[in-house]
Amino acid sequence: MIVTPQSMQFKASLPLQCGAALRDYALSFETYGELNAARSNAVLICHALNASHHVAGRYAGQDKSEGWWDNMIGPGKPLDTDKFFVIGVNNLGSCFGSTGPMHTNPDTGRIYGADFPVVTVEDWVNAQARLLDALGIQTLAAVMGGSLGGMQALSWALQYPERVRHAVVIASAPNLTAENIAFNEVARRAIATDPDFHGGHFYAHGTVPKRGLRIARMIGHITYLSDDVMNEKFGRQLIAAAKGGGQDDYLFSTLEAEFQIESYLRYQGDKFAEYFDANTYLLITRALDYFDPARTYGGDLSHALARARCKFLLVSFSTDWRFAPKRSREIVKALLHNRLGVSYAEIDAPHGHDAFLLDDPRYTSVIRSYFDSVEVTP
Amino acid sequence: MIVTPQSMQFKASLPLQCGAALRDYALSFETYGELNAARSNAVLICHALNASHHVAGRYAGQDKSEGWWDNMIGPGKPLDTDKFFVIGVNNLGSCFGSTGPMHTNPDTGRIYGADFPVVTVEDWVNAQARLLDALGIQTLAAVMGGSLGGMQALSWALQYPERVRHAVVIASAPNLTAENIAFNEVARRAIATDPDFHGGHFYAHGTVPKRGLRIARMIGHITYLSDDVMNEKFGRQLIAAAKGGGQDDYLFSTLEAEFQIESYLRYQGDKFAEYFDANTYLLITRALDYFDPARTYGGDLSHALARARCKFLLVSFSTDWRFAPKRSREIVKALLHNRLGVSYAEIDAPHGHDAFLLDDPRYTSVIRSYFDSVEVTP
Repeated sequence: MIVTPQSMQFKASLPLQCGAALRDYALSFETYGELNAARSNAVLICHALNASHHVAGRYAGQDKSEGWWDNMIGPGKPLDTDKFFVIGVNNLGSCFGSTGPMHTNPDTGRIYGADFPVVTVEDWVNAQARLLDALGIQTLAAVMGGSLGGMQALSWALQYPERVRHAVVIASAPNLTAENIAFNEVARRAIATDPDFHGGHFYAHGTVPKRGLRIARMIGHITYLSDDVMNEKFGRQLIAAAKGGGQDDYLFSTLEAEFQIESYLRYQGDKFAEYFDANTYLLITRALDYFDPARTYGGDLSHALARARCKFLLVSFSTDWRFAPKRSREIVKALLHNRLGVSYAEIDAPHGHDAFLLDDPRYTSVIRSYFDSVEVTP
Repeated sequence: MIVTPQSMQFKASLPLQCGAALRDYALSFETYGELNAARSNAVLICHALNASHHVAGRYAGQDKSEGWWDNMIGPGKPLDTDKFFVIGVNNLGSCFGSTGPMHTNPDTGRIYGADFPVVTVEDWVNAQARLLDALGIQTLAAVMGGSLGGMQALSWALQYPERVRHAVVIASAPNLTAENIAFNEVARRAIATDPDFHGGHFYAHGTVPKRGLRIARMIGHITYLSDDVMNEKFGRQLIAAAKGGGQDDYLFSTLEAEFQIESYLRYQGDKFAEYFDANTYLLITRALDYFDPARTYGGDLSHALARARCKFLLVSFSTDWRFAPKRSREIVKALLHNRLGVSYAEIDAPHGHDAFLLDDPRYTSVIRSYFDSVEVTP
């Protein structure tokens, strides 16, 4: 499936939860499959921290350019683009084409940098709704996302209850725990205290706070994997052993990478620092921290979800300690309390939070059969 | 109990596992209680990452100078200094008085800095044994430690099986998991990539890599606490709420601390960066990484522990995810396989890894009754 990214420009001001507004902004997006005549088969995909609108398919002439959920979405795949019209969209504040901190603020003529307004899950959903308006789509057959994307799917059901028929919320949570926030905060401090960050205005200094981005990504990777899968993949294996050296070859160094888990994390950190924007990292982790639909209902999630009208599929993974199954079960219970239709699958997978992006036949068959059941009037 | 730190100078060269040697080094230590005539009542306390030889008691004129295990050790306390002669010792490479990277290398006349040799748990135990020699103590009634200190206690039983009668190994593990090493590595990278680190020779530059130390400590603190206790202590409480503001007052900032867990971590990081040495942090986390007594036995822990001759008490805490109970059980099983006397207590405590430093009547009574049973010939 060869795909082409598109961009839509929005003139009208978008009011944000923080009190500011964005105007003259762009959203990058992609679509897969065909919108049917009744415009009833649209599925919106919401992305997590470091993903984008490039959800499925490949770009022409770029063999290794699969979208981040290409295993899940495409012709004949669990979310079948022969049946559904699927839309991927890059969120505001991100760094893959939609308006973000590296772009020019039309009010000042200067690059936003640290002045880009703090966006929330609710703001993203509002922006996505305007994109659907522009595409002539009133109602979504479904909205789907994993992790932070799942929070957006849940928020769609609350902000636009009449515009969503199904919400698929994977490896997600009704809000972050103190530990989740703590990991985000350490990552943010690593970035913000990197001397190359310059208070978020590093573009003007011609620098990139790569040290901080590397640390942030290394912390992230630890929390995406389970202890078990890390032990299985890396254990205590030395790099020397992988290079054919004996297991007795401790380097006795504190600065060189000695264990394979160390070189894996350093590699992931280096790669990430080359392409990801530091201000985007701050914004997106903060949107995670702030998401908490029960907050304005005195912490009562059942009360908060009473607005929802759609059907739900929730999926969690047994070894996901970042967004543990018990967090998904909180959502399930609150939905059931409201007598809403909810299916829930708890997949016994070893891969931790990352499992939502991986192929597991139990997981993909749950998604496939759920979407098989989604009715689409032609 | 008023105590006084002491220091012992060692001329003779101490060969290290890395192949280097240390000479003309000092060990800081303290003692509590009286060594009996038979010299049979000595208990050595081994410290973990950021602690020292100041284990119990107070310094004269300093009301708030309690030792780090003062709740456990003293007259009438679980480890009763009316019965035992207790020794606390600061490890080589640390930053509380014993020779470390901030001291002068006698071979070069320059400050060690990054050239301080990489020391291991086994090296520390050898240095501790020389201190005992100098104090005229041939056999320990017991050696006790938590976390990294527990690794030293275990290693004592293997390196000097005839010199230990009891080993008390608390909240510890037979080696680090890949995830443990991963957290250590991120902390080390934060320090080593701080521009103020200068390859470990920051003393000569008049700088301190405080940014890196702060990040390292924040990561550490997350792993010392359980998710549960973090939620109970901080939850999603805003700083504004603690200051009397309403819960609706999101600051919508990525740089300011918003949640109470954030200010807690920042405070812990700031405090740590004021007193802890960056090179020491690298050395001590590396000693943790390297400890693995089963390594030279093809990973067979039972085989590795066959050398031990003493009796053991193992203690673990249910919510400790850094050194989980299952890691202590691995040691217990290997000891039982060798038909060694072992008692094991798994305490259902909410406080995570930090529990080993806290007062819990179930925990302290286990320690008390174990030491009551340790026979001391007068």
